[in-house]
Amino acid sequence: MSVTAPQGFEAAGVVAGLKSTGKPDLAVVVNRGPRKVGTAVFTSNRAKANPIIWSQQVVADRTVEAVVLNSGGANCFTGEFGFQTTHLTAEKAAELLEVSAGDVVVCSTGLIGTGDQTFRDKVIAGTTHAIAELSAEGGELAAQAIMTTDTVAKTEVITRDGWTIGGMAKGAGMLAPGLATMLVVITTDADLDPAEADAALRAATGRTFDRLDSDGCMSTNDQVTLLANAASGIRPDLEAFTEALIELSDRLAEKLQGDAEGASHNITIRVTNAACEQDAVEVGRSVARNNLFKAAIFGNDPNWGRVLAAIGTTSAEFDPYDVDVWMNGVRVCTAGGPDRPREDVDLTPRATDLLIDLRTGDAEATIRTNDLTHDYVHENSAYAS
Amino acid sequence: MSVTAPQGFEAAGVVAGLKSTGKPDLAVVVNRGPRKVGTAVFTSNRAKANPIIWSQQVVADRTVEAVVLNSGGANCFTGEFGFQTTHLTAEKAAELLEVSAGDVVVCSTGLIGTGDQTFRDKVIAGTTHAIAELSAEGGELAAQAIMTTDTVAKTEVITRDGWTIGGMAKGAGMLAPGLATMLVVITTDADLDPAEADAALRAATGRTFDRLDSDGCMSTNDQVTLLANAASGIRPDLEAFTEALIELSDRLAEKLQGDAEGASHNITIRVTNAACEQDAVEVGRSVARNNLFKAAIFGNDPNWGRVLAAIGTTSAEFDPYDVDVWMNGVRVCTAGGPDRPREDVDLTPRATDLLIDLRTGDAEATIRTNDLTHDYVHENSAYAS
Repeated sequence: MSVTAPQGFEAAGVVAGLKSTGKPDLAVVVNRGPRKVGTAVFTSNRAKANPIIWSQQVVADRTVEAVVLNSGGANCFTGEFGFQTTHLTAEKAAELLEVSAGDVVVCSTGLIGTGDQTFRDKVIAGTTHAIAELSAEGGELAAQAIMTTDTVAKTEVITRDGWTIGGMAKGAGMLAPGLATMLVVITTDADLDPAEADAALRAATGRTFDRLDSDGCMSTNDQVTLLANAASGIRPDLEAFTEALIELSDRLAEKLQGDAEGASHNITIRVTNAACEQDAVEVGRSVARNNLFKAAIFGNDPNWGRVLAAIGTTSAEFDPYDVDVWMNGVRVCTAGGPDRPREDVDLTPRATDLLIDLRTGDAEATIRTNDLTHDYVHENSAYAS
Repeated sequence: MSVTAPQGFEAAGVVAGLKSTGKPDLAVVVNRGPRKVGTAVFTSNRAKANPIIWSQQVVADRTVEAVVLNSGGANCFTGEFGFQTTHLTAEKAAELLEVSAGDVVVCSTGLIGTGDQTFRDKVIAGTTHAIAELSAEGGELAAQAIMTTDTVAKTEVITRDGWTIGGMAKGAGMLAPGLATMLVVITTDADLDPAEADAALRAATGRTFDRLDSDGCMSTNDQVTLLANAASGIRPDLEAFTEALIELSDRLAEKLQGDAEGASHNITIRVTNAACEQDAVEVGRSVARNNLFKAAIFGNDPNWGRVLAAIGTTSAEFDPYDVDVWMNGVRVCTAGGPDRPREDVDLTPRATDLLIDLRTGDAEATIRTNDLTHDYVHENSAYAS
């Protein structure tokens, strides 16, 4: 049920003609209230797409009525004309929904530099079409319409004591932190104040989407939006809500990882006994971005030397000669030297666990990444749509 | 003539049996004086191999008599035993050359974690063998003996007003800054004081080897050593010597780039009109490390959006919406928007020029990198020797 699982939300996904494949490519999610709380986190890339620049203004007052999302074009580096396209999209949705354009978030994904008059016409027409199709069962279609190179639509739902959270996500390439390249819309019928919604969203993205680093490449269009309408009439304990939101976000992040372009391994990097959580994240990310390590995993080679070479480039507090490395449960390196033979490690399963014990403090963090494969290179050398 | 082109240097390259291929794998370079000035720069990776830890002590007094180099094993993360192997290697060379072991630099390259008793025995025997073979014509064989996945030996010679600089380099994978993964030995018969030699070497590596970033992966064994013996009897102007050393280093760096594992394009990234040189380097490096950009170049796709997405992640001073991007002489992006059509760009030549005009200041820098190819993934998923 995706984003329409919570009460009081409607959605639709339609074919706007932006994708050459003729598949759905435009989605709308509408909050029917009673409350219209909305917040979002955005890519930290300074090269921001027009919909990011627009949406940052929209969420400033923590009120969001609707989200319009398109695949088939990023509307990034398309100049003033591209920004006007985003603005006109919000105005069209606002007119039809009888709300303020300043409360309509817009998200785009696809090739950078795409956003001409044809793109504009199709987005505006598609928005009109999608709003006519809005329904409380539209969540699945909306999730399909935001797919780019994704092979499956990604949705999750969590229900707790009378309230529900639903989410949809897309993202397969250019997956890196701050945020991972993705569009995500999460809805809830819990009753949250704007500051609570914002705090919960930042806590959840910081622990989940921000720790997904498929290929170290940060997108221009990332956005995770949370809409909360209080339709359940229930005010959850904020801690319980945040925990549920983290769980839902983590599941979506796992689905993004599992569908990353060309990947053959889902690598979970757990860094333990770090001096602080930030150190653990830095260490995990250095491995997640090391092409030699990632190529070795593709080749089912438990090359722990490349792990140590990667973490040696960080400024985290630890002694490179007092580190343990485990791969799929086998300790291949202890105290900076060889331990169990590499033949003992079976790297053929898609799920790959790397554990790095820094033997310094008691903090830890987990980073998700993928291997570097022939298919990754192929998809990203040929990708132009 | 490599490192034996300047007067007063001898070298040899022999088969020590470290490589399974039976090719030369151990080299010795000896300075016959009269002066024994030596200095080196090392990987900034905190995960340092045993020969790095040893050699850092050796060069502290800026006196070096000889360099022993082996391929076929990095002697990194091999514990106290591995450090003793390095120490014993220096002692064996010192004994045979009748010098102090504290003046013998040792360099190793190959698989991390390799350094057992067999390795030790072969290195010691190979050192003995190589010293017996030393000659003033041994530079080429020495250059061959340090090759790993290199397909060609890399040497350069520059002669100026009565003095000469010779150099040899190896490095094909794990090429990233601080330093790029490499072993380099440079010799000169110019008469330099230790401080002058050190200043010239740091100036040269900072502008050349440190700006070669093939795959963003920093090695544990990088070392560039400069030996100066005053055999020419000529004290060059320091500026002229530094300029010649930069030129020789740049040529060696270009050869390393041209032989990078699996690469099909040599990409020269020139960043102009930056606020300062550091900004230009940061911007260039962000592109050099962007897998999506590198995969696009492999596919001959002039995807400037990926360039802007990469440089947007830096903290350099510039406006992402006021940047020009040129590929092979064609301006594909101006002021953050599309310019000439991508069809106008011919990316089929191996030599690829990317120019990023930040339109901010007047500083510039050039970073060398390679594309991300199927062969890179293959070589680095299969490489275990």
